[in-house]
Amino acid sequence: MSDHEDVASTDLESLIGPGAFGYFAGGAGAELTLRDNVEAWSRIALHPRVLVDVSERDLGTTLLGRHRPHPVVVAPMAYQRHAHDVGERGTAAAAAATDSLFVLSSQTTTSPADVADVLGESDRWFQLYVFRDRAISHDLVAQARESGYEALVITVDFPVAGWRERDRRTGFRVEHPIALNPSGPPLTTEQLFAMHDPSLTWDDIGEFADAAGMPVVLKGVLRPDDAERAVDAGAAGIVVSNHGGRQLDTTLAGIDALPPVVDAVGGTVDLLVDGGVTRGWDVAKALALGADAVMVGRHVLWGLARGGAEGAEAVLRQLLAELDSTLALLGCPRAVDLDASYVGRR
Amino acid sequence: MSDHEDVASTDLESLIGPGAFGYFAGGAGAELTLRDNVEAWSRIALHPRVLVDVSERDLGTTLLGRHRPHPVVVAPMAYQRHAHDVGERGTAAAAAATDSLFVLSSQTTTSPADVADVLGESDRWFQLYVFRDRAISHDLVAQARESGYEALVITVDFPVAGWRERDRRTGFRVEHPIALNPSGPPLTTEQLFAMHDPSLTWDDIGEFADAAGMPVVLKGVLRPDDAERAVDAGAAGIVVSNHGGRQLDTTLAGIDALPPVVDAVGGTVDLLVDGGVTRGWDVAKALALGADAVMVGRHVLWGLARGGAEGAEAVLRQLLAELDSTLALLGCPRAVDLDASYVGRR
Amino acid sequence: MSDHEDVASTDLESLIGPGAFGYFAGGAGAELTLRDNVEAWSRIALHPRVLVDVSERDLGTTLLGRHRPHPVVVAPMAYQRHAHDVGERGTAAAAAATDSLFVLSSQTTTSPADVADVLGESDRWFQLYVFRDRAISHDLVAQARESGYEALVITVDFPVAGWRERDRRTGFRVEHPIALNPSGPPLTTEQLFAMHDPSLTWDDIGEFADAAGMPVVLKGVLRPDDAERAVDAGAAGIVVSNHGGRQLDTTLAGIDALPPVVDAVGGTVDLLVDGGVTRGWDVAKALALGADAVMVGRHVLWGLARGGAEGAEAVLRQLLAELDSTLALLGCPRAVDLDASYVGRR
Amino acid sequence: MSDHEDVASTDLESLIGPGAFGYFAGGAGAELTLRDNVEAWSRIALHPRVLVDVSERDLGTTLLGRHRPHPVVVAPMAYQRHAHDVGERGTAAAAAATDSLFVLSSQTTTSPADVADVLGESDRWFQLYVFRDRAISHDLVAQARESGYEALVITVDFPVAGWRERDRRTGFRVEHPIALNPSGPPLTTEQLFAMHDPSLTWDDIGEFADAAGMPVVLKGVLRPDDAERAVDAGAAGIVVSNHGGRQLDTTLAGIDALPPVVDAVGGTVDLLVDGGVTRGWDVAKALALGADAVMVGRHVLWGLARGGAEGAEAVLRQLLAELDSTLALLGCPRAVDLDASYVGRR
Repeated sequence: MSDHEDVASTDLESLIGPGAFGYFAGGAGAELTLRDNVEAWSRIALHPRVLVDVSERDLGTTLLGRHRPHPVVVAPMAYQRHAHDVGERGTAAAAAATDSLFVLSSQTTTSPADVADVLGESDRWFQLYVFRDRAISHDLVAQARESGYEALVITVDFPVAGWRERDRRTGFRVEHPIALNPSGPPLTTEQLFAMHDPSLTWDDIGEFADAAGMPVVLKGVLRPDDAERAVDAGAAGIVVSNHGGRQLDTTLAGIDALPPVVDAVGGTVDLLVDGGVTRGWDVAKALALGADAVMVGRHVLWGLARGGAEGAEAVLRQLLAELDSTLALLGCPRAVDLDASYVGRR
Repeated sequence: MSDHEDVASTDLESLIGPGAFGYFAGGAGAELTLRDNVEAWSRIALHPRVLVDVSERDLGTTLLGRHRPHPVVVAPMAYQRHAHDVGERGTAAAAAATDSLFVLSSQTTTSPADVADVLGESDRWFQLYVFRDRAISHDLVAQARESGYEALVITVDFPVAGWRERDRRTGFRVEHPIALNPSGPPLTTEQLFAMHDPSLTWDDIGEFADAAGMPVVLKGVLRPDDAERAVDAGAAGIVVSNHGGRQLDTTLAGIDALPPVVDAVGGTVDLLVDGGVTRGWDVAKALALGADAVMVGRHVLWGLARGGAEGAEAVLRQLLAELDSTLALLGCPRAVDLDASYVGRR
Repeated sequence: MSDHEDVASTDLESLIGPGAFGYFAGGAGAELTLRDNVEAWSRIALHPRVLVDVSERDLGTTLLGRHRPHPVVVAPMAYQRHAHDVGERGTAAAAAATDSLFVLSSQTTTSPADVADVLGESDRWFQLYVFRDRAISHDLVAQARESGYEALVITVDFPVAGWRERDRRTGFRVEHPIALNPSGPPLTTEQLFAMHDPSLTWDDIGEFADAAGMPVVLKGVLRPDDAERAVDAGAAGIVVSNHGGRQLDTTLAGIDALPPVVDAVGGTVDLLVDGGVTRGWDVAKALALGADAVMVGRHVLWGLARGGAEGAEAVLRQLLAELDSTLALLGCPRAVDLDASYVGRR
Repeated sequence: MSDHEDVASTDLESLIGPGAFGYFAGGAGAELTLRDNVEAWSRIALHPRVLVDVSERDLGTTLLGRHRPHPVVVAPMAYQRHAHDVGERGTAAAAAATDSLFVLSSQTTTSPADVADVLGESDRWFQLYVFRDRAISHDLVAQARESGYEALVITVDFPVAGWRERDRRTGFRVEHPIALNPSGPPLTTEQLFAMHDPSLTWDDIGEFADAAGMPVVLKGVLRPDDAERAVDAGAAGIVVSNHGGRQLDTTLAGIDALPPVVDAVGGTVDLLVDGGVTRGWDVAKALALGADAVMVGRHVLWGLARGGAEGAEAVLRQLLAELDSTLALLGCPRAVDLDASYVGRR
C-alpha cells in the first residue's frame, strides 16, 4: 500500500506529464477498486512452516505446458512510449533479462516484430483486443504469429471503456498506437476505446483461437461460472482480473475472486491473477490460493517510467528476490508446492 | 464518498448560503447515517460477467405497470427555490429532458400545476405529507390529481421532525412553502415540521388512497414486517428509505434494509430504494438486490444549485451514462436482468 | 463520537484545570475502552417502525418497583466540586429539575444531607465504595439512610485503582472528599484509591444489604455468570458497566456486555447500563437490548463544568428530548415497549 | 499502539543513530506485521470478574518445571550494545532486579560468561542460531552450558534474513557480535545473516538438544502442525512468534496464532508468545489464551536505550505493575488461573 502510494506520487506525474500519469495511475470512478486491489493482498495472512531445508529454492512453474523459471508475467499495458521513450522495448528487455514472460498489448506503441527483436529467445504472449473492425485484430494476430508470440491473451472485460475521470480531466491524447492510429493526429482514449467491439461473445473466442493457431488465454474473468464457460470454449488459461481497477469501480479484487474460480476450474486450465501486485509475498499468496502465475502491470511500468529498461528490470529483480525470500521464510522451497495451508485471513 | 464530499463542500455553502446549505446537506444527530448512506454502496462489490453482447443496452424498468425508460427517479425534495431561484421548475425540466420520473414534494415552493406545465407529457408522482390539518393534505392531493400526477407517494417516516442540529445552529427560515405558508413571514423548519401529523397510522393510508383515486406508494419503510403491512394496506409500491439520513441518526441504510424487504414482499409490489446514490453503479446494485427503481435526491439538488435546470440535467445525464456503462461492463445489457449474482460483499 | 470529542476538548481543560480535566476525561491505559464506550453505540443500527400513532410518548420505566418518568439516571461521580464550585448540588438540582434519578457518590465533595436538601422530594440512590476501614462505609450508609436515599449502589469493579496515566502526569490532588479526607491536605487519587478494600467478596454484599436496610444494586458487572451470582446474592439491580473506561483498558463496552447479561438474568432484577451515553438514541438502544435504565456520567459532568446546575440540566433536557424524538421516529411511543426488533448490527 | 508509536519516535533515533534505530525499530517489508503485532492485542477484549478477594496477587508461573515469580521473559535481542553502551549487561541487570527470566541472544555483543556474572543467581536461557559453520553454534552452546544457562532456545524462523528495507537504506553495520565477528571490521546485517544455515531441519534439533544437555525451546513456530512436530522432536517449550514482524511481512501475529497451537499441543509443552507486548494486560491476555509466559523484546530495549539498566528495569517494573493491577481488576488473583473466560473478541 505504502509502496503503491510511493510509486504513484507526484514526481512521476512531473516525470511523464499529467495526462500520461493520470492514464496509467488512474482507475475507474472513485478508484475504490484501484485501492482495494492493493489492500486485498494485505488482508491475506501468511502462515510460515519452519525447519524445512530451504537452501535451494525453485521458483519455477508451468504455463501452457512450458516450464517457466518463475511465475511473474509482465502484464500487457497500452501506450508504453507515454511512460518512457523506450516504450515496449524497455519492458521487453527487462522481461528478457529476468526470464519473465512478456505479454505485448494490442495497444502497443511499438510493433510486435520490433518487440520480438528485443525479446530474442525469451517467451512472449500477445494480448488481443477485438475491435469493431475485426480486420485490425486479425492483422495483429498475424503479426504476432509471425514474430513468435506463443499464445493469445484475449481481453474479455473491455466491451466498452471504463469510466475514467482522470482522462476526461486531463484530455490525455495518445500518440503512435500502431494498430489503431499509426500515423494520424493523437486521439483521446475515448476515441480509441470506442473502436472496441461491444458485441464480442463466447462464439467469437473459438473463431480467433482457430485463426490464431495458438493457445488462447482469456483475461478479465472474475466469476466461477464464466471460468467454466471459458474452459468449455477451449481456453487454455484464464487471467482472473478486474483490469487494474480501470473498468468498473467497486468490482471485487482479482485475488478475492480467485478462490471460487479455483474451486470451479482449478487443474483444468492455467490460472493467472493480477491487480495490485507490488511484493514478492503477494505472488506467493496468489500461488498458495491456486494461481499458476501472476501478472504485474503498473509496478513494472513505474520502473520503466523512472529508469527505462533498467528501471523495469530493477522492479522485476526485486519482486523475484522478494518471492525467493518468501519461499525460504515460508518453509516452502518450491513455488509449486505452495497451498492454502500457508495463508489465512487477517 | 469522495464524490459526496466534493459536492457537499464549501463553495455550495457560499453559493446558497449557510442556512439552505445546512438544511439540504445536513442529516440527523451526528450524521452517522448520512455518511453510512453513501458508504453502504461501496460495501457492495460488483461481479461482472464477460463475453455477453452488450452492443445494445436497455435501461428500462416498469413502475406501477408503466414502462419507464430507466430506473432513475428524482426524489421529492422540499423548498427547492432555496437551492436555486428556478426551484422545482429546474429539477422538473431536468427530469423531463432525461425521461426521469419526477416526484414533487408536498413541501414544494412551486405549485403542482406550474411544475406540471414544465413537465409536459413527462411522468410525475406527488409526494404527500399528512398534516395535522388534513384539509391541507387533501387539497394538495386534489391539485396533484388535476395536474396529472399519477401516483401518491405518502411519506411515512416523518411523524415528527428529525433531530437536525444544523438548522438549529443556522436558524434557517423557509420562504414560500406553498402549501403550509404561501404568504406569511418565513418560518423555521421546526415550525413547519410541527404541522406534520404524528398520529398517522395504517388506517389513514386507505383513506388517502381512496380519496386520491390513484396508486399509493409508501416512502420510508425499512422493516420487512412493515413492508408486509404496506402490501396488506394496498400499497402499490414501497420506497425503502431512511429519509436521506435526516430523521433518526444511526438508522440503517436503505440499501442494507432492501434485501429483507425483497425477501418479504418482492414481486408483489414495486420496490424503490434511496439514500446516498451518486453513481450509476449504485443504481445497478440496487436493481441487482431487487429494487425496481432508485430515487436520487441531494445529488440532483446540488446540480440544481450549481447550474439550475441545466445543472440538474447534467447530473442525471451522468448518472444514466454511468448506469449504461455499468450494464455493459457487468455483461448485463438489460437492467431488468440484474440479479444477486452480480453483487457480493466487499 | 464527535460529540464526545467536542465536549472533552481543550476549553474544558482551561476551564477546570489540567488536573481535574485529566481526572474526569481520562480512562485507563491507552484509553481504548474509553473510546470504544462511545463507538459501541454507533455499531448498533436502529430499525424504525412506521405508521404508529406517536402523538403521545411515554418515556416511563420502573426501577426497584417504583415508577420513573424516564430511564435516564445521573451516574455517581466523584469530586464534583473539581468540575464546578457548585459541585454535587448542581447535578442534584439538574436531576431534580428533570425528574432524573440521582445517584450520589461515596467520593462526594458535598454531604449526603446537603445533597438531599437540594433534591427535595426527588428520588435518590447512594453509591457505596467499601473501604478498608469499613466504619467509613457503614457511616456513609447511615448518613444516606437518614437523608432518604432509597437504594445502595455498591460498586464492585474497584478493588484497586485503575491504571490512569493522566493523573500520574498531572499529579492531580483532590480537595474535600468528605468521607475520606474532609479536612486534611489534598491527596492524590492514588492515595485515596488505596483506601478501597481489595478483599471485598460476595459474602460482604449481604452484610451491607442487611445493614443498609435498603435494596442493593451492584455496579460494575460485565459477565453473565457474575450477574447470576448477583441475583443469588439478593441484588435488586445490576449496572452493566466498565466504570467509564477508567479501570482496565480494553475491557468490553457495557452495551456489548448487556445482551448476555439479559439472557442470563433478564426479568429477575433491574438492569442498568452505562458508558459513553451522549445521545437519546443511545438510551433507546439500551432499552431495546433489555436495559431498564441508563446511567449518564461524564456527559452530565461536562454540562456542570460549563454551566453549573443549569449546564447539567441543559444536558439532561437535551438527552430526554432526543429520547422522546427517538421513540416517535422509531414508532414505539412507550419506552417500555422497545425490544430487540428495533436494533441490529451496523 | 500509541505507546508503541511513542517509544519508536524520533528522539530514540537521534539517541542511538539512524542505523541502530532502523535495525531495532524496523520490520520486514511494508511493516504491516510489525503494526499488526501491536494491534492484535487490542482486538482482544477483557471480561473482568467481580467480588473476588484480590488483596493478594500471585503472578507466578512455571517454566520448564521451575517456578517463576512472574511470566515476563526478556526476549533474546541481538547487538544490544548498539542500543546502549552497557548492552546485554544492562538488560540482564534489569532482568535480575525484577526476577525476570533472561534470554541471551547468539548475536550477543557481550559474552555469555560476562552476562552470567551480571545475572548472578537469576535464571537464564540461551538463544541459539544455527550457523552454516556449526562449530560456532556448538561453541556457543558450550559457553552457555558453562555459564549456567538452563535451556536452549533454538530460533527456527530465520533460515534466511528477513526483507528489511530500513537496514538497506541506512547501511547499518554491526560492531562486536562476539560469536560471528569478534574483532573484524563492522559487517552489514546482510553479511551477518548470510551465515545462518538455511538447511536446518527437524533432524538437527535432536542433535543440538543432545549436545547441549539441556531442555530445548523452539522459537518461531506459528502453525499447529509445526507445534506437533516440535513436541515429537522432544522440545520442552515453544515460543509462538513471528520474530517481531522482522522476517516475513503480513505473517499473522503470534497472539492470533496461539489458540490453534494451544488446541494442538497445550498442556504437553510450555508455550510462550511474543510480538508487540507493551502492556501488562497484553500479558494477561496471553495467559488467558493458554500461554505460560510472554517474551518482551523491543519494549525492554527502548528502556535500555533511554536509560541503560535502570531504563530497562523501569520498563519491566511498569509491565509487572500493570499485570498485577490487571489480575486484581480481572478478579483473578493468581495468574495461573487465567482462562479463556476472561477474554473475547472486540
